[in-house]
Amino acid sequence: MRNDVENTAVANTAVTNTAVDNSPAEKTSVAVLGLGAMGKALATAFLRGGHPTTIWNRSPGKGDELVAQGAVRAGTAAEAVRAAELVVVCVVDHGAVQAVLDAAADDLPGRVLVNLTSDTPERSRATAAWAEERGIDHLDGAIMVPVTAVGQPEALVFYSGPRAAYDTYETALRALGGRPAYLGEDHGLAAVYDLALLDYFYAGMSGLVHAFALAGAEGVRATDLAPYLGTITGIMPPITAYTAEHIDAGSYPGEDAPLAMMAAGAGHVLEAAEQRGLDVGVLRAVKDITDRALARGHAADGWASTVEAVRGG
Amino acid sequence: MRNDVENTAVANTAVTNTAVDNSPAEKTSVAVLGLGAMGKALATAFLRGGHPTTIWNRSPGKGDELVAQGAVRAGTAAEAVRAAELVVVCVVDHGAVQAVLDAAADDLPGRVLVNLTSDTPERSRATAAWAEERGIDHLDGAIMVPVTAVGQPEALVFYSGPRAAYDTYETALRALGGRPAYLGEDHGLAAVYDLALLDYFYAGMSGLVHAFALAGAEGVRATDLAPYLGTITGIMPPITAYTAEHIDAGSYPGEDAPLAMMAAGAGHVLEAAEQRGLDVGVLRAVKDITDRALARGHAADGWASTVEAVRGG
Repeated sequence: MRNDVENTAVANTAVTNTAVDNSPAEKTSVAVLGLGAMGKALATAFLRGGHPTTIWNRSPGKGDELVAQGAVRAGTAAEAVRAAELVVVCVVDHGAVQAVLDAAADDLPGRVLVNLTSDTPERSRATAAWAEERGIDHLDGAIMVPVTAVGQPEALVFYSGPRAAYDTYETALRALGGRPAYLGEDHGLAAVYDLALLDYFYAGMSGLVHAFALAGAEGVRATDLAPYLGTITGIMPPITAYTAEHIDAGSYPGEDAPLAMMAAGAGHVLEAAEQRGLDVGVLRAVKDITDRALARGHAADGWASTVEAVRGG
Repeated sequence: MRNDVENTAVANTAVTNTAVDNSPAEKTSVAVLGLGAMGKALATAFLRGGHPTTIWNRSPGKGDELVAQGAVRAGTAAEAVRAAELVVVCVVDHGAVQAVLDAAADDLPGRVLVNLTSDTPERSRATAAWAEERGIDHLDGAIMVPVTAVGQPEALVFYSGPRAAYDTYETALRALGGRPAYLGEDHGLAAVYDLALLDYFYAGMSGLVHAFALAGAEGVRATDLAPYLGTITGIMPPITAYTAEHIDAGSYPGEDAPLAMMAAGAGHVLEAAEQRGLDVGVLRAVKDITDRALARGHAADGWASTVEAVRGG
C-alpha cells in the first residue's frame, strides 16, 4: 500500500502551497546561487519557509519578484555566500558550478555547500574532491520533481555526502521538498539514484508513446486507450518490489509469468509493430535482451533474470 | 484520481474470491473448450458465478477438480457446444482454435462463441470471417490479468465484435472478470488493445531492470532503490492522460519538460550506462527516437511529439 499512498501524494503535488512560515523561531540563513527556473523555485521555497534568503545570479536583472518577497540581492557570489550558513548552487552544468565556486571559494569554509545542479556521479565526486581540498563541507543533491512541485510536501530530493552536514540542515532543506532522502556518504549517490529513476522513466515514456502509435495504426484514439494503460501502471508497484528482491537474491522465480512466455509476447508486439510500419528500435532491443537471457538458461525464470544479460553487455 | 483507485483495486486482485453465487435466478449455460491453466480458471469462475458449465479438453484426463465443483464433462467439443448458450474457447494458439471450431462448426450457429485465446488482430479477424461465413455470432476477447486474478472484481477483460452479442452475455461474462470492456464491432480490437498494453508493459519492465542494473553497478542494492522508483510510477497516470490528449490533438506542448531537455537527460543515462559496461540497446533506441523527433523540429515540444518519429519508422 505504501506505493498507492505515494502515488496519491505525488499526484497532489501540483496543488500550490501558499502558506508562509512567519514563525519567529531561528531560521537558517541561506544563499541561492543561480536564478534559472529551478533556482527561483528554490529561493521561493526558502522564503516561504521563513529563511533569510540571499540571492545571486551571474547575469544581472533576475530575481526582482524574489526581492519583492523579501530576498536580499547580492552583487557577487562571494557576497551571497558570506550572508548565509547554507549555500545552494543550482546552475546549468558542471562548468557553471565550478565558475561560481571558484569565485566564492575563500568564503565557503565554515558553511555547508549544497550542489543541486544535475550531473553525473563522476562530476559530483569531482566537485566533492574540490570542496574537500578546501575544507568545505559539501552535499550533492538531485531534485526529482519539476519546478512547479518544488517546496511541496511530497517533493522528493536526493542528498548524499557527509551525514553530519545533512543532519544539521535537514530541517532547512525540507523547505525545498517534504521528502528529502539522505542516501549515504558517497557524494555520487544522489546522481546515481537520479540516473536510475530517469532510466526507468525514459523507457516507460518510450513504451507509452509506442503503445499509442501501435493502437493508433488501427484507428484507436489515444484517449480511448489511455484509461486501460492505467492497469499496467497499477501493477508496477508490486512488480517493482519483487523484482528488486529477486535481483538482490540473484534468484528469479518465474511462477505464472516465465521469461519464455514474456519473450514470446514481446516478439508478438514487435511483429505487429513492424507490420504497421512503426519504428521498432526499442522493441527489438527489448526482445534482444530477453533472447540473450533465454540463451543463458532463464526460460523458466522471471523477467528479473534479464538483469544478467544487461550486466553482460 | 481514477487511476489511484484503479491501482489500489488491481493491487487487491490477489485476494481470493471464494463466494459462490447460488441464487436461483436463471443463469446462462456455458461451455469452456480448453482446460489449460487459463481455461480451468475460466471454468472455475463460471462455476462460482452459478452458471451450468460444461467442459472439454482435447487431451483427456483434465478437469477432475472442475467436475468435483459441479462441471459436466463432455466427450467431444461438439457435445460441449450443444450443452451451452455461450461457448468460450481458450487454447494454445490460432491453429488449436481452428481445430476446435472445425470440429464443432455444425453446432455453433445459434450460440455465441467467445474466443479468449491470445492472438494478433489479423488472426482474430480471420476467425471472425470464418464464423461469419457459417452464421456464427462471435466475440473476440483478451484477458488482461494473470490466471490467479481471473474472476476477481477488478480483473480487466477486453471484448470486441457484435455489440448485441456482447450485451446479451455481458452479465455472464462478468463472472470472468468484474471489469469487462467492450471496445467495438471490429473483432481485432481486443487484440489491438492487448498488444498496446503489452507494448507499454515490456518497455517499462525493461527500464525497471535496467535501472536496477545501473544503480547496482554503483553498489546500490535493488531493494534500496525500489521505493524511489514508485515516484516515477506515481507520475505516470497524469502523464498518460495528457500525452494521450496531445497525441490525439497532434499538438505537443512542452511546457516545463521540453523534448530537448529530456533527450539530453536520456543521453546522460545512456552515457552513464555505457561507461559501466551495461547493455544500452534500449537506451540507444530511445535516444535515437528523441533525436529524430528533435530533427523534425520538436525541441520545444513535449515527449508526446516522438509519436511522429515512431510512425515515421
